[in-house]
Amino acid sequence: MADQVIKPKEEKYEDSRLYRVRHSAAHIMAQAVMEKFPEAKIAIGPPIEDGFYYDFDLPRPLTPEDLEEIEKRMKEIIKGRHPFQFRVLEADEARQIFKDQPYKLELIDGLEQGGMDEDGNPLAEKPQISIYQQDTFVDLCRGPHVAQTNEINPEAIKLLSVAGAYWRGDEKRPMLQRIYGTAWETKEELDQYLWKLEEARKRDHRRLGKELDLFSINQEVGPGLVLWHPKGGMVRHLAEEYVKREHIRHGYDIVYSPHVGRANLWKTSGHLDWYTENMYSPMEVEGDQYIIKPMNCPFHIMIYKNQIHSYRDLPIRMAEWGTVYRYERSGVLHGLLRVRGFTQDDAHLFCRADQMPAEIDRVLQFCLHILRHFGINQFHAYLSTRDPEKSIGEESRWNEATEALRAALDRAGLGYDIDEGGAAFYGPKIDLKMVDALGREWQLSTIQFDFNEPERFDMSYIGEDGQEHRPYMIHRALLGSMERFMGVLIEHYAGAFPVWLSPVQAVLIPIADRHVDYANQVADRLRQHDLRVEVDASSNRMNAKIRAAQTQKIPYMLVVGDKEVENGQVSLRKRSGENPGAMSVDDFLALAQDEIEKLV
Amino acid sequence: MADQVIKPKEEKYEDSRLYRVRHSAAHIMAQAVMEKFPEAKIAIGPPIEDGFYYDFDLPRPLTPEDLEEIEKRMKEIIKGRHPFQFRVLEADEARQIFKDQPYKLELIDGLEQGGMDEDGNPLAEKPQISIYQQDTFVDLCRGPHVAQTNEINPEAIKLLSVAGAYWRGDEKRPMLQRIYGTAWETKEELDQYLWKLEEARKRDHRRLGKELDLFSINQEVGPGLVLWHPKGGMVRHLAEEYVKREHIRHGYDIVYSPHVGRANLWKTSGHLDWYTENMYSPMEVEGDQYIIKPMNCPFHIMIYKNQIHSYRDLPIRMAEWGTVYRYERSGVLHGLLRVRGFTQDDAHLFCRADQMPAEIDRVLQFCLHILRHFGINQFHAYLSTRDPEKSIGEESRWNEATEALRAALDRAGLGYDIDEGGAAFYGPKIDLKMVDALGREWQLSTIQFDFNEPERFDMSYIGEDGQEHRPYMIHRALLGSMERFMGVLIEHYAGAFPVWLSPVQAVLIPIADRHVDYANQVADRLRQHDLRVEVDASSNRMNAKIRAAQTQKIPYMLVVGDKEVENGQVSLRKRSGENPGAMSVDDFLALAQDEIEKLV
Repeated sequence: MADQVIKPKEEKYEDSRLYRVRHSAAHIMAQAVMEKFPEAKIAIGPPIEDGFYYDFDLPRPLTPEDLEEIEKRMKEIIKGRHPFQFRVLEADEARQIFKDQPYKLELIDGLEQGGMDEDGNPLAEKPQISIYQQDTFVDLCRGPHVAQTNEINPEAIKLLSVAGAYWRGDEKRPMLQRIYGTAWETKEELDQYLWKLEEARKRDHRRLGKELDLFSINQEVGPGLVLWHPKGGMVRHLAEEYVKREHIRHGYDIVYSPHVGRANLWKTSGHLDWYTENMYSPMEVEGDQYIIKPMNCPFHIMIYKNQIHSYRDLPIRMAEWGTVYRYERSGVLHGLLRVRGFTQDDAHLFCRADQMPAEIDRVLQFCLHILRHFGINQFHAYLSTRDPEKSIGEESRWNEATEALRAALDRAGLGYDIDEGGAAFYGPKIDLKMVDALGREWQLSTIQFDFNEPERFDMSYIGEDGQEHRPYMIHRALLGSMERFMGVLIEHYAGAFPVWLSPVQAVLIPIADRHVDYANQVADRLRQHDLRVEVDASSNRMNAKIRAAQTQKIPYMLVVGDKEVENGQVSLRKRSGENPGAMSVDDFLALAQDEIEKLV
Repeated sequence: MADQVIKPKEEKYEDSRLYRVRHSAAHIMAQAVMEKFPEAKIAIGPPIEDGFYYDFDLPRPLTPEDLEEIEKRMKEIIKGRHPFQFRVLEADEARQIFKDQPYKLELIDGLEQGGMDEDGNPLAEKPQISIYQQDTFVDLCRGPHVAQTNEINPEAIKLLSVAGAYWRGDEKRPMLQRIYGTAWETKEELDQYLWKLEEARKRDHRRLGKELDLFSINQEVGPGLVLWHPKGGMVRHLAEEYVKREHIRHGYDIVYSPHVGRANLWKTSGHLDWYTENMYSPMEVEGDQYIIKPMNCPFHIMIYKNQIHSYRDLPIRMAEWGTVYRYERSGVLHGLLRVRGFTQDDAHLFCRADQMPAEIDRVLQFCLHILRHFGINQFHAYLSTRDPEKSIGEESRWNEATEALRAALDRAGLGYDIDEGGAAFYGPKIDLKMVDALGREWQLSTIQFDFNEPERFDMSYIGEDGQEHRPYMIHRALLGSMERFMGVLIEHYAGAFPVWLSPVQAVLIPIADRHVDYANQVADRLRQHDLRVEVDASSNRMNAKIRAAQTQKIPYMLVVGDKEVENGQVSLRKRSGENPGAMSVDDFLALAQDEIEKLV
């Protein structure tokens, strides 16, 4: 399908030229910093996605002017055509070279003892100790680097920001200054990247969440717990309403389960063994322990088990918009994308072996159908397969399940990467990421087999043979969670939701006070057709009202003045900048309904 | 309005003849029991709503045959024309009379010390000690009674059941046998009452919840926590979907808030002071205490307070289908009607003083509009007013609020009782009960002022005068909770929901296997019009299939055999017994859509 990204497995980033360029740029930056602050202590400086950083212990906080100066010096060093020289050496010689660099000395100790590389990451084998030198700067390093500094394009590097970072990420160790930079092959690539950064900043859902008054996360309520304001609540409601309706049309049952349940349930499911650290602490009620649910599955299993099932009853598809609570460290919480409470569009499929492949195919097709309705047309899929070391369940079932997932991906024409051995211990899965307007990937959907819970809860159905059989159980969430999905949608659309999802679809803009009555009449008429309409009856001037509506990303601005009142019209202006001008209210209504229908 | 029960304050039950009849019947029953078991110890025997009971300590459990025999003997005693004779006496004489009756002796002690009547209920004044005697039976009693036993109609009494009851309701005291009976003026009244009892038994939502597979309450999940099965989940979903859509049309905003929040919120709101015993115990997260919410209001207030409001922003109406958790003793839990977790159709109205009366009027009208859609047309309202002893907030505001509630009730033409001084300390309220098909009252809606939380959370808006003002805050729930409302609907409709709410609206009944394909085709066609349809492809015979559909209270049974296949028809049979017979699929569709539209 033309609208999907088919992304075959590319050259690994670690093997790419850009990786070496960025790594070398980090060293050059460290050289420039050392020249400016000879007393600086250097920590580590790896390439990262889209750039590099280096951590420094410096006598004072860096200013934006410092960054400019360092960047300027980097360009000079680059132009100096210095070779990167590699040398393996003994620990003692390395200690001599880095005798004034305590962080490096600590790393050398780690290297010598084995099990850790020069960035402090764990290693399987005991590494060599080696250094790289360019010009005057020597770093403890395994590379790889470019051959000479001038392989880096000085027009394609840029220092971006400074942030605090603990040495080795440990809050008990010193806080260092981390300089982030980026490096590309060409100036055009750099400019494109910087534009994307700026776009991403403008689209930041936390920023737009405030500006558009969609939601808030309030420390008095608790970190990671979302309050949906009226406008955000409307978008979420519209999304949920659409998705629920489609679920019913596609053969799902809607169930509801409580947010707490006896701890015993989680003992049976096994979560208390392997998931406790993500679960909230128990509450006690009449001597029993209760836990706020981190997932919905045990409840759906209880519903399943409430009666005996025949093979004729299957497949059963239970869907719930279930709000679950999982503990995450406050440090990793991030807007709507990483929270402590979220509402999964969760469903569990229970089916027979002979139904399973069709069921998988059906759920993947349904998933794409739903996501496309939200204007999401580019996907990147991942298939995670069995790790023989740690998996439970019969291998033949794993194979059948994995084949079903693969066949469904193939039929959908989705490009996918395989994460060999990357499945959870209880079953293989598909993860589906969307690719947004900026080309960023966001994890949304998951379709995941579970060979664990049906065993633990002893689930069964009576087959045609009169015997008990174990059903297949598949967890799936299409949007992932309402919170995360809303966050992604805000970023994807930069807050300018399609008309059908816009919390306010049209705003009436009376030019003067004498036009307010007419504006209200038109608004009421539109509301009768279930359009979501506001009237800006403020004392602001027309242009200010238009600006306000534009900032609020309201799809339709309907200006009404003397002429419009006289002719029973509205003057339409779209947030896109299009200016169709005066038209009858009926014509506007038809236009709006058409665009809603077309998911514009 | 013709369809509403206007129930003016009637003669108090305690002053009625029926109350005396039932009280006397209890004594007569005790006499019959004593004759049969001379060693019986008697406890208490008051009249209750619709009847009476008496508690006995007996040498063996009573059998249904015992009840028959006792009832027979009661009728003889009644016919004996024995007068009820009253006498006041000293405690010591009473002790002499009841020397073999330890429960009575305990009651006499209580009467003598004051503060308790002969049924063990608290009393303000120290009572006289008195006895009533009919025939051979003497009881410690203040009356009132009929003058002679034959004032009771022997054809209008009936013993109903035996149940265990702790002496004084205290589980540490002896378990007694409580015999329930009923007494009426006429045999017709008795028969009508017994019919209602039987109807109520058939309509019991716990029984129907199982039979129709609507929901379950599972001890493994926890008492008072409801699992909604696919069919019940569908009814709930349909109800919610309708009610949400109407809220949006009527100017409400939809918000969402988490199910947990920092304990501090409940300290600010005051709930930790006066509501703790109904709250779940706290959870600890990163050193902070979190509580699972017993109500949604503090979250809505946080949303309100997220920005500064102008008088132009009001009224604000925030609605949430918020699931709350409140602790109730497991002994008082009852199906869907008394649970530990429930989803309120909760909204908070924030408005100015000048908007308040219209807002109250509007919300009551909206409430009736919603309830009527569910086929609820008979109401009984209660207005609870200020208790000057324990109320907070300005008296003038209380008066204005109470007047607004009263005016709204008057305009709605609702009969209402006034519970003088019965309001909670924080504001006056309307409670609205529905009267169901059996004439039973069920509490549903509440519209309640709150003068407490706006103060405690220091809520304000900027008035036209540029000053800060305190908004009015009104809690309201129209259905009450989804759980309770579903329970009431099940009882009201005896599980035969109106077509628009029925989880399965039509079942295709193929007469033989060769008709199954055609049945599936028709089902698919109906589903395309969003009808909820099943096909009974089981090997059962047609009559068994019809019986099954009838038991499931499915509105439309569509029988298809050779003739229907040939003519492209279906033979319609309604659950009501109506039998419109063969018609085209289009005609059936039109009929169904018409009945859905008409809320049949």
